[in-house]
Amino acid sequence: MKLVVHKYGGSSVADAQKIINVARRIGRVRDSGAQVVTVVSAMGDTTDDLIKLAHTVSQEPDPRELDVLLSTGELVSCTLLAMALRDMGYDAVSLSGFQAGIHTDTTYGKARIYGVDAQRITKELDRGRLVVVAGFQGITEAQDVTTLGRGGSDTTAVALAAALHADRCEVYTDVEGIYTADPRIVPEARKLLEIGYQEMLELASSGAKMHPRSIELGAVYKVPIYVASTFVDAPGTLIHQGPDEHQMENRIKVTGIAYQAKIAKITVRGVPDRPGVAASLFEPLAQAGISVDTIVQNTGMERMTDISFTVNRSDVPRALQEVQKVLPVIGAAEVVTDPSLASVSIVGAGMQNTPGYASRMFRILADGGINIELITTSEIRISCIIKEEQVRQAVRLLHQGFHLDREP
Amino acid sequence: MKLVVHKYGGSSVADAQKIINVARRIGRVRDSGAQVVTVVSAMGDTTDDLIKLAHTVSQEPDPRELDVLLSTGELVSCTLLAMALRDMGYDAVSLSGFQAGIHTDTTYGKARIYGVDAQRITKELDRGRLVVVAGFQGITEAQDVTTLGRGGSDTTAVALAAALHADRCEVYTDVEGIYTADPRIVPEARKLLEIGYQEMLELASSGAKMHPRSIELGAVYKVPIYVASTFVDAPGTLIHQGPDEHQMENRIKVTGIAYQAKIAKITVRGVPDRPGVAASLFEPLAQAGISVDTIVQNTGMERMTDISFTVNRSDVPRALQEVQKVLPVIGAAEVVTDPSLASVSIVGAGMQNTPGYASRMFRILADGGINIELITTSEIRISCIIKEEQVRQAVRLLHQGFHLDREP
Repeated sequence: MKLVVHKYGGSSVADAQKIINVARRIGRVRDSGAQVVTVVSAMGDTTDDLIKLAHTVSQEPDPRELDVLLSTGELVSCTLLAMALRDMGYDAVSLSGFQAGIHTDTTYGKARIYGVDAQRITKELDRGRLVVVAGFQGITEAQDVTTLGRGGSDTTAVALAAALHADRCEVYTDVEGIYTADPRIVPEARKLLEIGYQEMLELASSGAKMHPRSIELGAVYKVPIYVASTFVDAPGTLIHQGPDEHQMENRIKVTGIAYQAKIAKITVRGVPDRPGVAASLFEPLAQAGISVDTIVQNTGMERMTDISFTVNRSDVPRALQEVQKVLPVIGAAEVVTDPSLASVSIVGAGMQNTPGYASRMFRILADGGINIELITTSEIRISCIIKEEQVRQAVRLLHQGFHLDREP
Repeated sequence: MKLVVHKYGGSSVADAQKIINVARRIGRVRDSGAQVVTVVSAMGDTTDDLIKLAHTVSQEPDPRELDVLLSTGELVSCTLLAMALRDMGYDAVSLSGFQAGIHTDTTYGKARIYGVDAQRITKELDRGRLVVVAGFQGITEAQDVTTLGRGGSDTTAVALAAALHADRCEVYTDVEGIYTADPRIVPEARKLLEIGYQEMLELASSGAKMHPRSIELGAVYKVPIYVASTFVDAPGTLIHQGPDEHQMENRIKVTGIAYQAKIAKITVRGVPDRPGVAASLFEPLAQAGISVDTIVQNTGMERMTDISFTVNRSDVPRALQEVQKVLPVIGAAEVVTDPSLASVSIVGAGMQNTPGYASRMFRILADGGINIELITTSEIRISCIIKEEQVRQAVRLLHQGFHLDREP
């Protein structure tokens, strides 16, 4: 019998009527003869509300306690969905992360799944039941509850699909799939019918948001992930091992345009150009848990260099604190900040093997009067850091310039 | 080291400020050098709100699913209390019913505890931690979540106190203890400093409400239970094996006045007086889950009898349905109902061994113009079924007539 894992996000189960609608959807799949395991997020803004509640009793809520608190959101939604299914005459059972065998490490707040013991789910499926699993949560070896981080229900769903050898994992959300660019910025953005895992990771800003770890997990275990709308009956996007492998030569190379706002650039000026300087600078940042993205070093005259790097804007105060501490150690002159930047990227499998994409991108931006601050590339992505106020224009120009509005 | 179990009801943890106040109380006990295990109910009206929520998706919510849903209420309050304690610098940890080792049968909605595996709690106490346990919930052998029924957190607390051999179980609530009568009816009702388990069971209507099973459990395991106010710093009531055993001869026999409203009397008239009739009548009622309290049979003339019994008013329609079915079988003439009755009781250990209490009770009621419909007695209680509209007056007259306003 076919086995599918469905996942419904918070907006899809935001109220009783929506939960009943989801139950109807699952019922139809069951009626078609398939086994269904459904993973749900907490209803609407429950998680945010619970975080606020925690802050009413504690300035800095204990991470272990916070995880138990947050896990209740998904317990509520999964029991309600199971009740609604039973009310429609389907035999359904809800399982907590613990009951579903989601085993994690002890990193409260962003625990990583180290294994799935699918025994209980398999037993319930064998009894002919629809299984509804609380997303976002797991249990440690010491039987303490953990959560997987914001968006973690996607990862729950893909992990279960992998463990159960499901035919595929279907993620239902409030958008119809993955687009060639963010449709709020580029109205003519085209919905992609399929995309590779790596491209999906880069196109996180274009349409459906997915927990990046769910995509990585899907890639490792080769789980086809279908992303579509809960509310509109329209074809979605299939994320799979995909076209990049077998169709590479005869498809267009740029799949979509991604962007990220709220980026800040920190530049340390007048750094003596000697070994160990970069380590002295970035080690304390790593220890402080600050994620550094692009790093560029421009060697100038007189054995002095400037080191620039980007961080999330919200990390600037903490990053500056750390950098100020090491300035005298590394003998640098000063540190300056530009807090109003963004990145814009062209994404596509095999781009690095084909010349001309980078120069075409730079030309399009230059013709639009957009100055490039920094450039980085990966195997499937070329990114430019630009002024934040120009990012929407840049996305539009690149979408147009690479003819993404046309069917390939 | 001294070990106490504290229990706080829903009104004691109704909001953030109240939770912080409870944390301060527990902190003070800790500072005095005691180990504390705290059991909490869900905040305020959470349980009712969750039941309403369940009914938005299902007309008759599945009992198993409903129990998981309801159990989240106590998970929320126990994590918030643990966070508040940590915020004050105490090492605290919350445990779900499952983690606390509360093992129950599978009677969802009113599961019974069949054992407590206190290993995890003991481990946490040995680490010097304050332990906060989610009340009202347990786990079955198949690791499914159950709830113990309304008020079940009391039973969680007493069960833990028994399993941990705690010095005592302290139940904090919104009233100051157990009174000689309901203080809302008898303003001069006196707070009792101590009371026996059996008397407490009978005096459930007088002051602090306790889950009856918690009292029974306390009696079996000889757990002293101290009931006092969360909000007022005043002495409460100690429920223990108590005075009835060792002081019986030199204490007043009537401890308090209890009452129960919303009682209905069902009378089956013209029942042939032959063996098996009562069984034919009450077996179907038991099978329908209808709790029958007092039963009285008045044999009349010509081998015909009337059988009267009382049920909760809300059970009348279902009870009549069952009785109507057996009327032709037992050959009875008709069934009549009086739905507006109440019971009033005098409660006291050893009453049955001392003559005169019953007659004094009947005299007091008669002098007040109160007619008695039915009479029942137990070892420590004499109850009269009277018109509901007279019950408040009856409680007042009996409290006065037995001089309960005076110190014994």
